[in-house]
Amino acid sequence: MSRIKKVIKRMKVKNELARQIMGEVLGTFVLLLFGCAAAAQVKTSRETKGQFLSVNMAFSIGVMCAMYLCRAVSGAHLNPAVSLSFCVLGDLAWIKLLPYSLAQILGAYLASGLVYFIYHDAIMEFSGGVLTVFGPNETASIFVTYPTDVVSVQTSFLDQVVGTAMLMLCILPLNDKRNAPAPEALLPPIVGTVVLGISMSMSANCGAAINPARDLGPRLFIFTAGWGTEVFTCYDYFFWIPLVAPMVGGVLGSIIYLVFIQWHLPEPEDESDEDSFVMVYRWHQNYFYILYISVYISEFVFFTEEERRVRANDREYN
Amino acid sequence: MSRIKKVIKRMKVKNELARQIMGEVLGTFVLLLFGCAAAAQVKTSRETKGQFLSVNMAFSIGVMCAMYLCRAVSGAHLNPAVSLSFCVLGDLAWIKLLPYSLAQILGAYLASGLVYFIYHDAIMEFSGGVLTVFGPNETASIFVTYPTDVVSVQTSFLDQVVGTAMLMLCILPLNDKRNAPAPEALLPPIVGTVVLGISMSMSANCGAAINPARDLGPRLFIFTAGWGTEVFTCYDYFFWIPLVAPMVGGVLGSIIYLVFIQWHLPEPEDESDEDSFVMVYRWHQNYFYILYISVYISEFVFFTEEERRVRANDREYN
Amino acid sequence: MSRIKKVIKRMKVKNELARQIMGEVLGTFVLLLFGCAAAAQVKTSRETKGQFLSVNMAFSIGVMCAMYLCRAVSGAHLNPAVSLSFCVLGDLAWIKLLPYSLAQILGAYLASGLVYFIYHDAIMEFSGGVLTVFGPNETASIFVTYPTDVVSVQTSFLDQVVGTAMLMLCILPLNDKRNAPAPEALLPPIVGTVVLGISMSMSANCGAAINPARDLGPRLFIFTAGWGTEVFTCYDYFFWIPLVAPMVGGVLGSIIYLVFIQWHLPEPEDESDEDSFVMVYRWHQNYFYILYISVYISEFVFFTEEERRVRANDREYN
Amino acid sequence: MSRIKKVIKRMKVKNELARQIMGEVLGTFVLLLFGCAAAAQVKTSRETKGQFLSVNMAFSIGVMCAMYLCRAVSGAHLNPAVSLSFCVLGDLAWIKLLPYSLAQILGAYLASGLVYFIYHDAIMEFSGGVLTVFGPNETASIFVTYPTDVVSVQTSFLDQVVGTAMLMLCILPLNDKRNAPAPEALLPPIVGTVVLGISMSMSANCGAAINPARDLGPRLFIFTAGWGTEVFTCYDYFFWIPLVAPMVGGVLGSIIYLVFIQWHLPEPEDESDEDSFVMVYRWHQNYFYILYISVYISEFVFFTEEERRVRANDREYN
Repeated sequence: MSRIKKVIKRMKVKNELARQIMGEVLGTFVLLLFGCAAAAQVKTSRETKGQFLSVNMAFSIGVMCAMYLCRAVSGAHLNPAVSLSFCVLGDLAWIKLLPYSLAQILGAYLASGLVYFIYHDAIMEFSGGVLTVFGPNETASIFVTYPTDVVSVQTSFLDQVVGTAMLMLCILPLNDKRNAPAPEALLPPIVGTVVLGISMSMSANCGAAINPARDLGPRLFIFTAGWGTEVFTCYDYFFWIPLVAPMVGGVLGSIIYLVFIQWHLPEPEDESDEDSFVMVYRWHQNYFYILYISVYISEFVFFTEEERRVRANDREYN
Repeated sequence: MSRIKKVIKRMKVKNELARQIMGEVLGTFVLLLFGCAAAAQVKTSRETKGQFLSVNMAFSIGVMCAMYLCRAVSGAHLNPAVSLSFCVLGDLAWIKLLPYSLAQILGAYLASGLVYFIYHDAIMEFSGGVLTVFGPNETASIFVTYPTDVVSVQTSFLDQVVGTAMLMLCILPLNDKRNAPAPEALLPPIVGTVVLGISMSMSANCGAAINPARDLGPRLFIFTAGWGTEVFTCYDYFFWIPLVAPMVGGVLGSIIYLVFIQWHLPEPEDESDEDSFVMVYRWHQNYFYILYISVYISEFVFFTEEERRVRANDREYN
Repeated sequence: MSRIKKVIKRMKVKNELARQIMGEVLGTFVLLLFGCAAAAQVKTSRETKGQFLSVNMAFSIGVMCAMYLCRAVSGAHLNPAVSLSFCVLGDLAWIKLLPYSLAQILGAYLASGLVYFIYHDAIMEFSGGVLTVFGPNETASIFVTYPTDVVSVQTSFLDQVVGTAMLMLCILPLNDKRNAPAPEALLPPIVGTVVLGISMSMSANCGAAINPARDLGPRLFIFTAGWGTEVFTCYDYFFWIPLVAPMVGGVLGSIIYLVFIQWHLPEPEDESDEDSFVMVYRWHQNYFYILYISVYISEFVFFTEEERRVRANDREYN
Repeated sequence: MSRIKKVIKRMKVKNELARQIMGEVLGTFVLLLFGCAAAAQVKTSRETKGQFLSVNMAFSIGVMCAMYLCRAVSGAHLNPAVSLSFCVLGDLAWIKLLPYSLAQILGAYLASGLVYFIYHDAIMEFSGGVLTVFGPNETASIFVTYPTDVVSVQTSFLDQVVGTAMLMLCILPLNDKRNAPAPEALLPPIVGTVVLGISMSMSANCGAAINPARDLGPRLFIFTAGWGTEVFTCYDYFFWIPLVAPMVGGVLGSIIYLVFIQWHLPEPEDESDEDSFVMVYRWHQNYFYILYISVYISEFVFFTEEERRVRANDREYN
């Protein structure tokens, strides 16, 4: 008896980060399995076994399930943009940002793989055996997000920034003791509902990834599974937008929440004052760094190369 | 360290009303961003990425998110009709009614602007570049509510009165300690569900604005954004109905709740008696004022100009 | 000041039954207003502003709102079949059954009237001005339930019995302290969800009234509003089925819950034993009465007149 | 009075297993009544009174209702795969697995029968009086699950394994005190939502039974009700897959939860250590048994008969 006990104890992962990575991998795996499987169901059944709304709802339920699964282990970020926001807010050590993000991408990759195996027969029948990114029989959109034809790169970027900012703006108060928070044990379904709202209102332009891992993981998978290099090159190298824009948006939404709401709430009794101070301090440290990146990115996005050159000249002369 | 602390403290908005206005602006912004973006998604995707129900659900989720966001700051009225009702009930000082309403309209205006930017490309493609209020390519209905062709002005007015009365009648018991209230931390999703119910059952006639800010804010925006004066003149100057009728309906619903339910509930132990008395007292004060406005408005709505003149004559002679 | 207080006190309805009737009238009014208005919205918009599911959801949300509204006043039965079941279970005095039922019918009648006024223009446009029960332009189904053409009277009756039995079987455990109950403050949305389930699965045959008041109130209204006597005579006097069958079904469902679940649950500590005993005692009292009615009704339904005569003869001879 | 009391006491079922069986029969009956009735409603109304999503939602609400009904009596497994998983986890005695499973199948059988009676007229009208498994007028799919034409047996098996594994992986944390669990009184709607998610994302291939009783009970019923032997032989004897695969999947999902999440959570204060130990110990006991079955089954599924013979030869020679 005591031997079994020892065996179990030995199997317990002692390193906290390792446990957290395991949690994030499994959580993101569950999230993407629900979401991509629903997309596959709707696509391959030609909307007879579900519709656009089903996919939105499945992602929402996936968020709920993933949060209940790994919330106690890793905080259930499930999204590098959320992890970055929590770094900025001082709730996650910066050193953990990369491991978290990689774990999330890995979970998404594995889930896409499993969805591909489950729906292999149906995808082959739907696509006529040719895995493509374009055309009426394309199947890449089961896994990854794409913009519509009419959307410019600036609008796509803005769309993803706003979507992710809304995500952070709407989930931060849910757990803020100084605000009027939701019941802690019911956070998962409520966060899921927020995600449902975003995907019902901001997915027309480019699919509401609002999550670099949700897009990059499956994209890497379909790249390796035979969809070809087009998955990266198509729509003018669109793939970088769901990678970068959510990071900017998440931080932006967090800052909006801090500046317009959190700072003005009544301070809690004793320890929270310290907390609040630490949070602000850490946030302050990162301030210039974030500002610099934001300016740099926005310059890259909203100006053509020529305009940038002109502006650089202007700065030199002034 | 103590310098940073001081900086933060200095940035804290000390004036309560200013904080509340900030809260209402941001809350209504979130509500309208979800709602109008969903309407834009459904419209510009020609119902391939959502349907009528999506818009209803997005407004409902918007209510939930907005309430969690600013409930602790400003009470999350998000609606001048709700603010007016709380003034009548004695929960909001009359002096704050105008600032609250303007803040809500501002939030709605800003949200419409952002939706316009996000969906700019899609709106241009859908409308062929011509922003109009009428016709198959009209895009004004993304932002504001319009009546159907067959609905008379009286019916529209009644429709909005009933919708807003239902809103107040259904949300007042949720937070009434003398009744059997909902869990306080779950009020936002439940109020969101009430709004979903109203928009699924009373939006056929004229779009279930039930909120002057939800209609006026976006209307002002599309007026400034190039839809022209038609946004106000169309449908026989319909725009005044979602401004006035919800105010009447909100107060009416509150009074129905007071008279038929609240007064007859068992009085709570000690302090609530005083509260109840104060509430009734304040309500009493406003009684004649409200009555007068109601009569005046109903006269304006339900009689033609000639009939009014006749009635005025009658009164003089009697 | 003390005068106002006195006025208020005088306006408080002292009679408990009068308060309860007021609560049931208002509660059923809210329930039917949501439900019938949604039906009107879907019908008159020719399914462009909602679909079959919308009506189901609106009734479900109506149940939620009505329960929060009048639960503390009258128990929020909203349904004579529920009131009868609670009489049988000993939770409502038999003397109150008729007043409760009439109040519920009145609330339903008033709600139908208001829906008619709100959707008057739309109904006139849809029906071409002729209010009928049959044909592609019929509008009676906005208000009342009808069977499909293929359903026999026996099946209709069984359908309503099963639907209402499911209702009682599924809501009784929600509030049973001996079972694993739902949170009391969240009963309304959960009961609403149960109703949604029933109307999604058992409304194909004859519309899932499962509530005599929900059907009779509106039926009386459309009779008085100009749809003519056909509202009662159509489909071979179908109207009696949603009146009688739910009463049988409600009691049946309650008995099933008692016999198969409740009796075998662990008895609670002290007082509940007495409660349980009283409940059983009262139930025992009503036993023969219910049995007699059930047998009588089933005889009426499942046998033709001739068979009944034969059976009566058989009984005489034996 | 004391006589009645005695009668009641005598009617109380004293044997715990008998009570549990009663609970599982009634619970599974409720689950299947909602689900199959919704399927019948959608099918026989030719999708005018519901759609694919309605059936998913009805099953989800059925789970909720069934759990509230019998959770305190039998734990509300409602699914032999769940019962098996709880045996493996040490929460249910192995001796009870068969009685539980048979009770669940019986409940499902009875519910199918009642659905058949309620929808008898509609089914006859839809099918033209011929109860068949194939063709446009087939009605077997109201009751049981079938694969699509393009899905291979391996994919079907994998699909059911993954679906049931997701079920266990997502519901185990909901009630795990060491994790961040959901409120106990709200488990039923949350588990229902998980089931909704699975049926929206993994039902395209073969209908997401993820429950041997949900499939076998109705299948036995329609076999006896006149659909003929085809209900078992069709689609190359598909019926065994929803029987066996969920058992494998349920256990697999439980093990994944244990190994990747549960073992690494902080141990609770005092007694839970013992609990955890016992759980692991019991799990250890079953380890080789499960492993053996899994290997055996996977061999049967993933290899042709010839390959198995070759592998057996190989083993003999080595």
